Amino acid sequence: MNVSEFRRRGKEMVDYVADYLEGIEGRPVYPNVEPGYLRPLIPTEAPQEPEAFEDVINDIEKIIMPGVTHWHSPYFFAYFPTASSYPSMLADMLCGAIGCIGFSWAASPACTELETVMMDWLGKMLQLPEEFLAGKAGEGGGVIQGSASEATLVALLAARTKVTRRLQAASPELSQAAIMEKLVAYFSDQAHSSVERAGLIGGVQMKAIPSDGKFAMRASALQEALEQDKAAGLIPFFVVATLGTTSCCSFDNLLEVGPICKKEDMWLHIDAAYAGSAFICPEFRHLLNGVEFADSFNFNPHKWLLVNFDCSAMWVKKRTDLTGAFKLDPVYLKHSHQDSGLITDYRHWQIPLGRRFRSLKLWFVFRMYGVKGLQAHIRKHVQLAQKFESLVRQDSRFEICAEVTLGLVCFRLKGSNQLNEALLQRINNAKKIHLVPCHLRDKFVLRFAICSRIVESAHVQFAWEHIRELGEDVLRAEKE
Amino acid sequence: MNVSEFRRRGKEMVDYVADYLEGIEGRPVYPNVEPGYLRPLIPTEAPQEPEAFEDVINDIEKIIMPGVTHWHSPYFFAYFPTASSYPSMLADMLCGAIGCIGFSWAASPACTELETVMMDWLGKMLQLPEEFLAGKAGEGGGVIQGSASEATLVALLAARTKVTRRLQAASPELSQAAIMEKLVAYFSDQAHSSVERAGLIGGVQMKAIPSDGKFAMRASALQEALEQDKAAGLIPFFVVATLGTTSCCSFDNLLEVGPICKKEDMWLHIDAAYAGSAFICPEFRHLLNGVEFADSFNFNPHKWLLVNFDCSAMWVKKRTDLTGAFKLDPVYLKHSHQDSGLITDYRHWQIPLGRRFRSLKLWFVFRMYGVKGLQAHIRKHVQLAQKFESLVRQDSRFEICAEVTLGLVCFRLKGSNQLNEALLQRINNAKKIHLVPCHLRDKFVLRFAICSRIVESAHVQFAWEHIRELGEDVLRAEKE
Repeated sequence: MNVSEFRRRGKEMVDYVADYLEGIEGRPVYPNVEPGYLRPLIPTEAPQEPEAFEDVINDIEKIIMPGVTHWHSPYFFAYFPTASSYPSMLADMLCGAIGCIGFSWAASPACTELETVMMDWLGKMLQLPEEFLAGKAGEGGGVIQGSASEATLVALLAARTKVTRRLQAASPELSQAAIMEKLVAYFSDQAHSSVERAGLIGGVQMKAIPSDGKFAMRASALQEALEQDKAAGLIPFFVVATLGTTSCCSFDNLLEVGPICKKEDMWLHIDAAYAGSAFICPEFRHLLNGVEFADSFNFNPHKWLLVNFDCSAMWVKKRTDLTGAFKLDPVYLKHSHQDSGLITDYRHWQIPLGRRFRSLKLWFVFRMYGVKGLQAHIRKHVQLAQKFESLVRQDSRFEICAEVTLGLVCFRLKGSNQLNEALLQRINNAKKIHLVPCHLRDKFVLRFAICSRIVESAHVQFAWEHIRELGEDVLRAEKE
Repeated sequence: MNVSEFRRRGKEMVDYVADYLEGIEGRPVYPNVEPGYLRPLIPTEAPQEPEAFEDVINDIEKIIMPGVTHWHSPYFFAYFPTASSYPSMLADMLCGAIGCIGFSWAASPACTELETVMMDWLGKMLQLPEEFLAGKAGEGGGVIQGSASEATLVALLAARTKVTRRLQAASPELSQAAIMEKLVAYFSDQAHSSVERAGLIGGVQMKAIPSDGKFAMRASALQEALEQDKAAGLIPFFVVATLGTTSCCSFDNLLEVGPICKKEDMWLHIDAAYAGSAFICPEFRHLLNGVEFADSFNFNPHKWLLVNFDCSAMWVKKRTDLTGAFKLDPVYLKHSHQDSGLITDYRHWQIPLGRRFRSLKLWFVFRMYGVKGLQAHIRKHVQLAQKFESLVRQDSRFEICAEVTLGLVCFRLKGSNQLNEALLQRINNAKKIHLVPCHLRDKFVLRFAICSRIVESAHVQFAWEHIRELGEDVLRAEKE
């Protein structure tokens, strides 16, 4: 394909994308395919000769679309939102064309520098403490990671290196293995599975702290675990606090947990993957109070801030904590500016070496929405969640299972788990809307997450009426 | 921005991208900016109100482009290529629009299933042993990772889990920490820094094996290290063999290293990040001989197979080795098909939870180039490297420093390192072409990597004449 064909096909693709998103409401939100559907539809090997673009684009509707779960449909209420916006897609096109691999400043100065400044812009939107910003001479700063899972892992590894060096400085005879055997990290029993996974990868013990009645990690439970572990000779070194848990969007108590971390010299990492975007609204910023106690903070603009995946924003107070954990400098990656102090080589901040020019997405989205436009998006979603909550509350056969703070409503039919499993199955079999469940303690609960950029009050109303009808069917079937 | 503005702006962006790539030869390949150039050019905070698209797009030339290292310029001969092609960019637009997060089969069946089948297509193009393919009921299969660094880390973690379980099955009293303390992994002293980093992250000892005169890891050196370590009570468990090292594109001797790994029950991971793409050509396939001994194999189609970053292709013989190391299954990610045996939940194969619909890029590129088109791309690059090599060999003041097998030529002025450092500095200061150096043993060497999709014989000729002229200047300056 030469450049003139790209001009033509690129414009056709823009129209295909526009048509897809404009018509997404008309597609079934959840696909009607069985595992293994795709393989028989395509050849068993790649073609030897080139095929025409028409054949490829025609196959999208024939082969791909029947198997797509449409995350941007206004009838998609599953998981958490994944962001999508036109400015972000335009930025991604540019990112692909520039196609630089920004592992060091020299590999593309604009890629590194725009990222640093955009992370400062975003940090200011969240009113992060000054220490997290790079500014002109700060010790902290932000980096775009691929996912919150990576951010948690990077924080854990940095904390592990830091505590190991501290202990070895005091007792040089201690081996790394002897230290690692005794390290212990804490997270709420409501934290995302990626937190426990970070511990598995890093080879350190992780302990789940029982959350309270509001599914929050509190001082008392954390303190109790700490005392037990210290008495047993373990070395507490790392705590993950979650703001906006995956199951029910609960918030760990930062103002209680933070001071304990300071006192015990434990690294505090905050995972606000979903909820973090909301903190750009003054009325939700209080949920972030206590961030001043943290060593690292992360949330995903690719969830709720209209920046397409992937773009996970992470800040640290001391960049040398990250670079100290990872820095290896082969000659082919050295460049003349790297010891100037003014520049950043982001490869030392992350797991992979390569990285795309992802800050272009932030730049386009911030400028074309403005802070007010982004705040309006968050507020609309929260209002829709409140509307759904009030609809549920009006029906005495249903119950709300956790406080509704942002865009997620956890609800269920009053009654057994079996009843609610049957309800969920009917909902997802009908394929008019799509939901996923969670467990809150021993209860099977349905999660209703406001997801789509284009979801409106009418879609929520429709979804509720549909759920209520199926609920009635389930209740009737139970009586029979 | 509404959908009709996206139609208009998207088409403008297609033209901007086409203009950029069509005119890339006219831009200076390496930017003329100093660290910190960007921050003063843009506001200190995000705007409150939306800005117009014109303002954003105008700023690309004003603010971004002056700081871009143009990786796709035909005068870019640094690092290794990063792939770029129009079909891949078109696929990426579609990927952004669908915007699904394919962490499980249910989260978007097409995303998972196309990936499995495309990895089979690619595996067949490479003539990988059947065991690496998913097929309809295979135990192996492929997955798209973000980078070769991640693939190495994932392989190391899987190997660590596997050996730990094996040892604990035999001696249940052994703690994980007691085992980890004794684990040791091997890699060539020519391996990429990400290999050593994987060991740092995984908390295991890594030992560099001295490579031979051709910069290859051989049986004797590996065997020697093994015997020493076993005598010292260590547990060898993991070997990374590199096909196409970063410094000079040397090849570890798989046919020697592989049988040792089998005999000693060590996991063999092959990192062919750059060179792997060449194995689709029958004349280069012999370089992969010995892959049958490997447990996992990885290369980057995003380097040399015209698939834009990121797309790192990894295969394993036993998928349960990966999933066994990572599997954690919270309720909100469970779905009704997951125990059917027919489906794949790729989140258990990788570090992050989220993943884009990256297989669309493979599908578009394979179909629109055909295998023959891709082979032609590889062959053209290899021929251009051979041309450059022969130009260098014709000038007795220069020397070739390592065998030229694929698209990389390592060369230098005969003489001191200082002389060659001066030459490189002149080359990169002149900014007509861009190169990076490496060390081979104690020699400072210049790397000339054929990178751009559009590089032609005339560009290589120009580059050589330019280098020769600057070489003369350097030699003259030395004599004065």
